[in-house]
Amino acid sequence: MSKVQVKKVVVAYSGGLDTSVIIPWLKENYGCEVVAFVADVGQGADELVGIEEKAIASGASECHVVDLKDEFVAEYIYPSLKTGAYYEGKYLLGTSMARPVIAKAQVDVARKVGADALAHGCTGKGNDQVRFEGAFSALAPDLHVIAPWREWDLESREECLDYLAERNIPCAASLTKIYSRDANSWHISTEGGVLESTWNAPNDDCWAWTVDPKKAPDAAENVTLKIENGEVVAVDGQAMSPYEVLVCLNEKGVKHGVGRIDIVENRLVGMKSRGCYETPGGTIMMEALRAVEQLVLDKTAFEFREEIGIKASHLIYDGRWFTPLRESVFAAAESLAKDVNGDVVIELYKGHATAIQKRSPNSLYSEEFATFGADDVYDQSHAGGFIRLYSLSSRIRTLNAAKQK
Amino acid sequence: MSKVQVKKVVVAYSGGLDTSVIIPWLKENYGCEVVAFVADVGQGADELVGIEEKAIASGASECHVVDLKDEFVAEYIYPSLKTGAYYEGKYLLGTSMARPVIAKAQVDVARKVGADALAHGCTGKGNDQVRFEGAFSALAPDLHVIAPWREWDLESREECLDYLAERNIPCAASLTKIYSRDANSWHISTEGGVLESTWNAPNDDCWAWTVDPKKAPDAAENVTLKIENGEVVAVDGQAMSPYEVLVCLNEKGVKHGVGRIDIVENRLVGMKSRGCYETPGGTIMMEALRAVEQLVLDKTAFEFREEIGIKASHLIYDGRWFTPLRESVFAAAESLAKDVNGDVVIELYKGHATAIQKRSPNSLYSEEFATFGADDVYDQSHAGGFIRLYSLSSRIRTLNAAKQK
Amino acid sequence: MSKVQVKKVVVAYSGGLDTSVIIPWLKENYGCEVVAFVADVGQGADELVGIEEKAIASGASECHVVDLKDEFVAEYIYPSLKTGAYYEGKYLLGTSMARPVIAKAQVDVARKVGADALAHGCTGKGNDQVRFEGAFSALAPDLHVIAPWREWDLESREECLDYLAERNIPCAASLTKIYSRDANSWHISTEGGVLESTWNAPNDDCWAWTVDPKKAPDAAENVTLKIENGEVVAVDGQAMSPYEVLVCLNEKGVKHGVGRIDIVENRLVGMKSRGCYETPGGTIMMEALRAVEQLVLDKTAFEFREEIGIKASHLIYDGRWFTPLRESVFAAAESLAKDVNGDVVIELYKGHATAIQKRSPNSLYSEEFATFGADDVYDQSHAGGFIRLYSLSSRIRTLNAAKQK
Amino acid sequence: MSKVQVKKVVVAYSGGLDTSVIIPWLKENYGCEVVAFVADVGQGADELVGIEEKAIASGASECHVVDLKDEFVAEYIYPSLKTGAYYEGKYLLGTSMARPVIAKAQVDVARKVGADALAHGCTGKGNDQVRFEGAFSALAPDLHVIAPWREWDLESREECLDYLAERNIPCAASLTKIYSRDANSWHISTEGGVLESTWNAPNDDCWAWTVDPKKAPDAAENVTLKIENGEVVAVDGQAMSPYEVLVCLNEKGVKHGVGRIDIVENRLVGMKSRGCYETPGGTIMMEALRAVEQLVLDKTAFEFREEIGIKASHLIYDGRWFTPLRESVFAAAESLAKDVNGDVVIELYKGHATAIQKRSPNSLYSEEFATFGADDVYDQSHAGGFIRLYSLSSRIRTLNAAKQK
Repeated sequence: MSKVQVKKVVVAYSGGLDTSVIIPWLKENYGCEVVAFVADVGQGADELVGIEEKAIASGASECHVVDLKDEFVAEYIYPSLKTGAYYEGKYLLGTSMARPVIAKAQVDVARKVGADALAHGCTGKGNDQVRFEGAFSALAPDLHVIAPWREWDLESREECLDYLAERNIPCAASLTKIYSRDANSWHISTEGGVLESTWNAPNDDCWAWTVDPKKAPDAAENVTLKIENGEVVAVDGQAMSPYEVLVCLNEKGVKHGVGRIDIVENRLVGMKSRGCYETPGGTIMMEALRAVEQLVLDKTAFEFREEIGIKASHLIYDGRWFTPLRESVFAAAESLAKDVNGDVVIELYKGHATAIQKRSPNSLYSEEFATFGADDVYDQSHAGGFIRLYSLSSRIRTLNAAKQK
Repeated sequence: MSKVQVKKVVVAYSGGLDTSVIIPWLKENYGCEVVAFVADVGQGADELVGIEEKAIASGASECHVVDLKDEFVAEYIYPSLKTGAYYEGKYLLGTSMARPVIAKAQVDVARKVGADALAHGCTGKGNDQVRFEGAFSALAPDLHVIAPWREWDLESREECLDYLAERNIPCAASLTKIYSRDANSWHISTEGGVLESTWNAPNDDCWAWTVDPKKAPDAAENVTLKIENGEVVAVDGQAMSPYEVLVCLNEKGVKHGVGRIDIVENRLVGMKSRGCYETPGGTIMMEALRAVEQLVLDKTAFEFREEIGIKASHLIYDGRWFTPLRESVFAAAESLAKDVNGDVVIELYKGHATAIQKRSPNSLYSEEFATFGADDVYDQSHAGGFIRLYSLSSRIRTLNAAKQK
Repeated sequence: MSKVQVKKVVVAYSGGLDTSVIIPWLKENYGCEVVAFVADVGQGADELVGIEEKAIASGASECHVVDLKDEFVAEYIYPSLKTGAYYEGKYLLGTSMARPVIAKAQVDVARKVGADALAHGCTGKGNDQVRFEGAFSALAPDLHVIAPWREWDLESREECLDYLAERNIPCAASLTKIYSRDANSWHISTEGGVLESTWNAPNDDCWAWTVDPKKAPDAAENVTLKIENGEVVAVDGQAMSPYEVLVCLNEKGVKHGVGRIDIVENRLVGMKSRGCYETPGGTIMMEALRAVEQLVLDKTAFEFREEIGIKASHLIYDGRWFTPLRESVFAAAESLAKDVNGDVVIELYKGHATAIQKRSPNSLYSEEFATFGADDVYDQSHAGGFIRLYSLSSRIRTLNAAKQK
Repeated sequence: MSKVQVKKVVVAYSGGLDTSVIIPWLKENYGCEVVAFVADVGQGADELVGIEEKAIASGASECHVVDLKDEFVAEYIYPSLKTGAYYEGKYLLGTSMARPVIAKAQVDVARKVGADALAHGCTGKGNDQVRFEGAFSALAPDLHVIAPWREWDLESREECLDYLAERNIPCAASLTKIYSRDANSWHISTEGGVLESTWNAPNDDCWAWTVDPKKAPDAAENVTLKIENGEVVAVDGQAMSPYEVLVCLNEKGVKHGVGRIDIVENRLVGMKSRGCYETPGGTIMMEALRAVEQLVLDKTAFEFREEIGIKASHLIYDGRWFTPLRESVFAAAESLAKDVNGDVVIELYKGHATAIQKRSPNSLYSEEFATFGADDVYDQSHAGGFIRLYSLSSRIRTLNAAKQK
């Protein structure tokens, strides 16, 4: 494949080893100007210190750091939570939800600086390449996309470090890195190391944020969430923005060892991978939202919400954010969330986040109906007729079969 | 509604207050012979002690105690587990799965004794009346069904006790019973009392079997399950029948406070109810089966299994066991379960049952594919083409929209 | 069941035999004032001539005729069409969609006249009782509902005619009526008579509106529909309101024998029934909308629209219009319909309505991509990588199975 | 990409221009022995005349013609029909269902002759490459796959003809071929030519088998199908094998212009294409099977069968035949088909195939229940209770909302 002609490329830059190599590599291999783009999705202040200088030192002509923290939580995470999406029953989609907000901001920077190409540092084996390029296809199909990891022949950290050293580009990266991690305000993921065998249990190194449940406080702690239209709007009586809610609940979750999962999942590219994910605040929020849904969704609506959750989980995971189907599925979830209002008390204890109290102005639960005794709305005599019609086709089927004999 | 003419009725008898009243009530109101039928689904030996004498003392002409423990686990629970069914995301369907096996055995007794009617002690507000009568419709639509709770005017425990006292029928039942419980080998449910307000947290009385996780051992305990075709066949290296597996895992789960849920659920009859359910062994099994599925089901198969799980949960909950749809859904699950083979180590710790190690001869996970470096099966250069086609419709859509402007 | 106390009831009145009996019956049996409500949903001017006088003559204190023709098509039919709903694969839901708009207007009249009850003339075996009462439950759970057909002991047309004759209430109804029909602007249904045996073919009497395809013109006729956001907005270049579109297309469809179906369907109340339905204009519209969808929906969106269509068909059929689930499902369909824009030429010929030409500004179809030869957007070399990853799990599964042997 | 080392390749050979070029091209470019494999899936005797000689003349060392006609209908089509699959609502999957049976037989030949590679003549833009290679991945991941169309630089029929002429390989292919066709016993497809613009109506050249409905007989013809377990086993009283049924019904369908569709569909590789498909006998069978399902499937089973149909349509279309998911979905359909027994009379008339009479020993339809009047199984008084519980959550929701104000 002959290389495309590129004048100016915007690269998603993290300050890590990979993307530090990408900058000089792009300049050498494409003969183009390279603009660094850094997305702040809450991955931590440490990772952003001095990042602009580092990008320039690596050869970037400019470095744009964009604060996406509020947008990420308010416009990507909160709508996703309304769908109840867990990928393959467990994963709260932390990396998946971050990719579209980053890709969109990267395209915005490309438009601003007049770039004709986009580059990312994702490997050729993962989901993220699909998520980035899926977003680019929908938002900027006119821009070229360069995925250095699928092009170059660098195959190890050592080769990457050598590459930088040969060019006198400073890099603090260490030679060995056992675990591969991805963090944002919602979650941190850990892959590699002992996790590569599914017959190994995770060890302490596999968990980066949360306290080991076994070392978490012996005393449980309660936290109260206020929910409006399927969104957490206050914690312990304090109104907060979506991002503030997440920061606040992360802190509590971390302390009590909440939100750890260890999963073998199906990647979009056809292979399986194993990861340990920590989503402390998110786990608390999901528990609270589901608890209110228990009160307000009727049987058929609840079932549909569960189906929507499965669909949404795949759409988000698969990098389908900017598609008509994702919008349609989310429109359905948004509609159901109108009734999801209320308060929930979550008990945090050694890895558990359990809704122990819940109430809603829209609750369909009624103490009167649930308990014994006559009432206006529910008359037990109705049940006989209900059951008779409900099971009528079974009755006909069996009677008919008897008749055929 | 005029009463039907009945000569001999088989009543599902538990030995409790309700069904003790039902026997004389049926005799007086239908002028018929009453045969008691007791299903042993593992609700506990205590509940069965002296039950035949009690039934006769209440006026039954015969009492048939049928041991359904093995059949219940092997033919109802195990197939259900392959579907991955959790009702409304949480409930492991303990009461729901027991009803069809009981109803079927009750019909068998009715055929044996030549009865022309069936009776049950379910109230007119619950799901169980639908489950029993749904099964009766499919298995014996020619038999009359009597549901005394929907007919009589007894409205309290006091009235029931008075009813028995007036007839000199001995009954050890107490005047007050705050919580309503249902138990079998799979689970125990608790409703009523403080649970009637969703804003009340469950208290100690709401849990009957399991140790409070806060009081569970500080040391975790591991248990290893061997799984074949989606069925747990051995525990800690010891081959066991399905029922034995359940008994063994219940014991471990109880000790570590595993399997508690507190849920507000949609009843089939249109109202919501709240219950605390304990499913200690079942929770361990579900975790183990799902863990193997992570290894062996590909992305599309996994998604279908999740959808099947939702469908199955409603079919089981809704008393649809003996229907063509239930059979069809289970056939799909059975087919997928052929690959669900392997071993799982579950860690039990203060309410948690976590799969920490898992392996399968059918595993699609491969250390080689998942890690960096070239390999035969997966070539990173393939990814570029994959992504391009995968996102082609997004690309066309946006290019086209641009052209329209 | 003791009768409820009612002062003023609004009855859905059609001018037919049943509802003519209901007015005096309600007065005699409930001792209440009876207000007649007539919904004009396009069932035909004939049916409305002199209807107010007839209602008063039957004993109604007032008669409100409400024109719902535009609302029915614009707010019930058009949104439903976006979902692509065919009940059980065939039925275009003509009666089902009319019930909620009628019930809603009936409740409005009840509020206006200060009534405390609602009545309808649906039998106890059909779906319409559920649709009316389902709507009443959601819109006016505080009002009593009276369903005379489930209460009285009149069992034949003869008894109904005698009932009126005894009271000197004039009625033009004939003693025998072989077929039962329901009409509105969208469709006419025919049940009974020879249709009662599924082994009888429909005869000429089973079709009320459409020309027999065998007697339809030998020359085909084309009609062009313009579609915006999933709604037909013009016919043959002429902009029209939804109701006008329907009237115009009905005329063309009737002439060419379009829109006949003969179906055995599952009623909501557990039994099956057979009907012949004619939906001439609607069948043309559905063909046109689906044709544009072929151009604009990508593979995953198309599949979801099909699933949505099944769900919507049941919700509409089952009288679930005024529920959160119906709203959610329709929100999803509405979202997808944003791209459904274009023109379609439909050929009408002896019962066929076939889209023979179609185009859309949002079309994802491209002559360039579809034909041979190189192009920018699609590079054949991409396909190899795509396929490799697309089938990777199959490859791994089989390789692994071989390794196990 | 460097070429793989291959010794002996089995190529799916049709005798057409493309695959005639492929034989010498493989020999020259891979230096390997080439074995021709011809699948007889009922594409017509004409296409098979002298095909072995032609293959040898083109340079094949051997030519294996395998008769798959019975296997194709009995083991691929018949099971698919039970799912009710129509791809994107219309397409009866004629080409899709043929690919796996061909690929499987091709692998069998490869094993027999000891080949180490497989080749096919599908282009890089279509679905068939995915279907072939998807099957190869599952059945023979150890064999190399060569797809010449994605490798060579021949871009037109002229270049292909020149290629053969230069090598003195005889070929009767014409220089121009406007339409591209694919046929087997189930269907024939036509693409290209005027169909390339969706705004063109199909012309006479777009239809290869069926009589134009406008020129079909003025007299309708009836045909009676006997169905057992979801399979057509006899036509007009004559027991037949699946393949014989198809041949017989094709003849009738062709005469009456039955089974034409004109569709723009989503290809698996992300683009849309347009085709005219003719499935005369298949259309008759589908109508008959659906007609029996109307009689025997209850409401919930029918809905699931519709969902299964959508899923199956994608799995078949997408080349997923040899996957656990396809097997699971088909197991569900197989289970439901147990009740699909009966007789159906289909009327054939100018493009219509309409079930006009139907009956089944498993029919849930009952004249008695459907008509007016009292009966044992259905009591109208049951309906009141049914409706009350059925709409209970709506009632509670609205009452509750009123209370909140």
